[in-house]
Amino acid sequence: MSEKLTLKGMRDFLPEEMILREKVVEAITNVYRLYGYRPIETPALEYLSTLKAKSGDEIAGQIFKLEDEEAGLRFDLTVPLARVAANNALQKPFKRYCISKVWRKEEPQKGRMREFWQADVDVIGSKSMRSEAELLLVAKDALAAIGFEKPVFLLNNRKILNTLAAKIGFEENKETVFRLLDKVEKIGMERVRKDINGLIGENKVEKLFEVLGTRGSNEEKLKKAKEICEEGALELEEIVTNAKGLDVKVDFFLVRGLGYYTGPIFEIKLGDDIGSVGGGGRYDNLLGLYGQNDYATGISLGIERLIYLIKEREAKKTDAKPEKTYTKVFVASVKGFYREAVKIAEEFRKNKISAETDLNERNLSKQFDYANSLGIKYVAVVGEKEVKEGKITLRNMESGKEELLYVNEAVKVVSG
Amino acid sequence: MSEKLTLKGMRDFLPEEMILREKVVEAITNVYRLYGYRPIETPALEYLSTLKAKSGDEIAGQIFKLEDEEAGLRFDLTVPLARVAANNALQKPFKRYCISKVWRKEEPQKGRMREFWQADVDVIGSKSMRSEAELLLVAKDALAAIGFEKPVFLLNNRKILNTLAAKIGFEENKETVFRLLDKVEKIGMERVRKDINGLIGENKVEKLFEVLGTRGSNEEKLKKAKEICEEGALELEEIVTNAKGLDVKVDFFLVRGLGYYTGPIFEIKLGDDIGSVGGGGRYDNLLGLYGQNDYATGISLGIERLIYLIKEREAKKTDAKPEKTYTKVFVASVKGFYREAVKIAEEFRKNKISAETDLNERNLSKQFDYANSLGIKYVAVVGEKEVKEGKITLRNMESGKEELLYVNEAVKVVSG
Repeated sequence: MSEKLTLKGMRDFLPEEMILREKVVEAITNVYRLYGYRPIETPALEYLSTLKAKSGDEIAGQIFKLEDEEAGLRFDLTVPLARVAANNALQKPFKRYCISKVWRKEEPQKGRMREFWQADVDVIGSKSMRSEAELLLVAKDALAAIGFEKPVFLLNNRKILNTLAAKIGFEENKETVFRLLDKVEKIGMERVRKDINGLIGENKVEKLFEVLGTRGSNEEKLKKAKEICEEGALELEEIVTNAKGLDVKVDFFLVRGLGYYTGPIFEIKLGDDIGSVGGGGRYDNLLGLYGQNDYATGISLGIERLIYLIKEREAKKTDAKPEKTYTKVFVASVKGFYREAVKIAEEFRKNKISAETDLNERNLSKQFDYANSLGIKYVAVVGEKEVKEGKITLRNMESGKEELLYVNEAVKVVSG
Repeated sequence: MSEKLTLKGMRDFLPEEMILREKVVEAITNVYRLYGYRPIETPALEYLSTLKAKSGDEIAGQIFKLEDEEAGLRFDLTVPLARVAANNALQKPFKRYCISKVWRKEEPQKGRMREFWQADVDVIGSKSMRSEAELLLVAKDALAAIGFEKPVFLLNNRKILNTLAAKIGFEENKETVFRLLDKVEKIGMERVRKDINGLIGENKVEKLFEVLGTRGSNEEKLKKAKEICEEGALELEEIVTNAKGLDVKVDFFLVRGLGYYTGPIFEIKLGDDIGSVGGGGRYDNLLGLYGQNDYATGISLGIERLIYLIKEREAKKTDAKPEKTYTKVFVASVKGFYREAVKIAEEFRKNKISAETDLNERNLSKQFDYANSLGIKYVAVVGEKEVKEGKITLRNMESGKEELLYVNEAVKVVSG
């Protein structure tokens, strides 16, 4: 029912979904912090002039606009960062993370919503490819922290694509051509080739696809790339060398839709048949649009896609049991002993154990039902017998074991 | 400079500000979880019909509306929760928390922005005053977790105010009268009294203010309240009794601006001269507007106000040192040893120590400057000597002490 009451392409996250989401966000945040990235948050709303400065027509058309104001909801976290970095005296290199919501008025599809979360890391003020190599490492560790062990990083360089466009002679159409190339996964190679053909002609398409289709090892592809654009190829070579141990694949078909990329670009996959879970690239000229120009590069993980994959993974496990609550102990009270139960719960909490009491004045059996339905592992009972002895009855709801214990003993059992 | 580039009443949070904000949010989240509250998140955008159902005219006029859609940004976290709870089969009592952004197109003032964060806990499906008492306890613990030890809880009951309106005879004007009463702090008692006078006449105002002005202890005020509305007074009495140990003050002038409250209402202060840092109340009829009706009560802490107070508090300390980064160790590299530095940094991270390396290919002195400017406590140097011995030189940037250590020894020093 709830879906009907939310806007198209937007969702409510109930606790089961939200606890998983919080765990994912916390795990990724931890990795970002471990690498020294620092948090920045910007408003959800930005001036349209900021949003449209370099977004490309497609994204510009997807902005949720405000009534009566030249403003709209941000469609990514990179544009606001560029605005901030171009207008504040930040210590460089400036490494930032941001895990937050963005909005795009796209046609909703499976795994593609109109409100979604991105998890970004960016380096501002570094022209070295060390930054790109680190971004790939951060992404690898972040994915490992949520159980995805073998990411594949696709790698290309806008400089190579730009030089190709100049050499083959379709510079005036290059942005359209690149956007079409970016759609190979969506609409298929044949259709893309046909559409590009309509723009630049058979002859040029053939030359373009001959290069893009280069097969072989990274070394072989980079050799080919050097013939076209030595600078771009050397950058990729440096990233590949620095990112040793990672599964990096040079892929000339990789384009990335957004208009602001200028150098190396990447995309992260978790398997051949699964779409990308993240991507990014260098956007050295974006800051200049908002103030002081500087080098910039970044990578973004798509939280929605990752959560979708985690759920799919969990669904395959026979013992999968999504968490419904953070509560570890429900302190049940016999009639007349609620106040004592509250005190016992406080003792648990002082020991960092989540504990709740019966807010609804229910009988003991109903309190057990409640604890059971939320999958709470322990129920501590407080009644006359317990209060007389200064103890509680602790029941392990999984094993059924019951013990009469002092609170500090119970704390140990629950913590262990 | 950055301010000019953000919308009126909205701000960017740079790392120093954001790290503090993250710590506050994490501390409050932990307390909410310790009490068994469960996370729910809803879209930033809601249908206008949802937002306006019971918001009151003032708030309705402050909604950021979308162009071409009957939707706008949420102005609080309670209305979306009511919508969700009224349309999903949730285990009751349903205890939820949400710390997230809301938007109101108000005239910005010091500490009052157009985009701000609220930290809410709510109980759905409990008519017992145990819920209200727990909410006050949660708020107290959450405030204590960020260093505010002695909150005062102002307490009133809409039932008492409603009965007063009926008995004195200004029921048709009561919402306006209540909204005026809510402005005593903003515009002063005299002005409020004059404005109400204009609405309901001197005679009724005198009767109203005679009751509202009741002085004395909670007991004395509750005695007076019982003469007017026994049910409302007994509810307050139960809260006061259950919330023993808290500084609770019955205050008949407390109204709370929002239109949806139906029972006990509260406001939290940290001192006489400081405005409220939070508040809430019972809104038993709100869910009915969106689907299945149920009992509901909640409390909200204002993150902006709390952060403002924390900053004020920190500014008074002579040794105050706002954190600029999460990084604990900067692993500096002599030219030609960057790859080794990356490996050392990885060792630190494996031990949960935030470590970063030089992304900008700087000389050693500039790397030290960078670490210093961010207040990073340790710098580990990796060069020829170190690599030969399989060690690193660890410098404590505060004490100036330098040691040649194995990485595992350095990990211990940094962790300790």
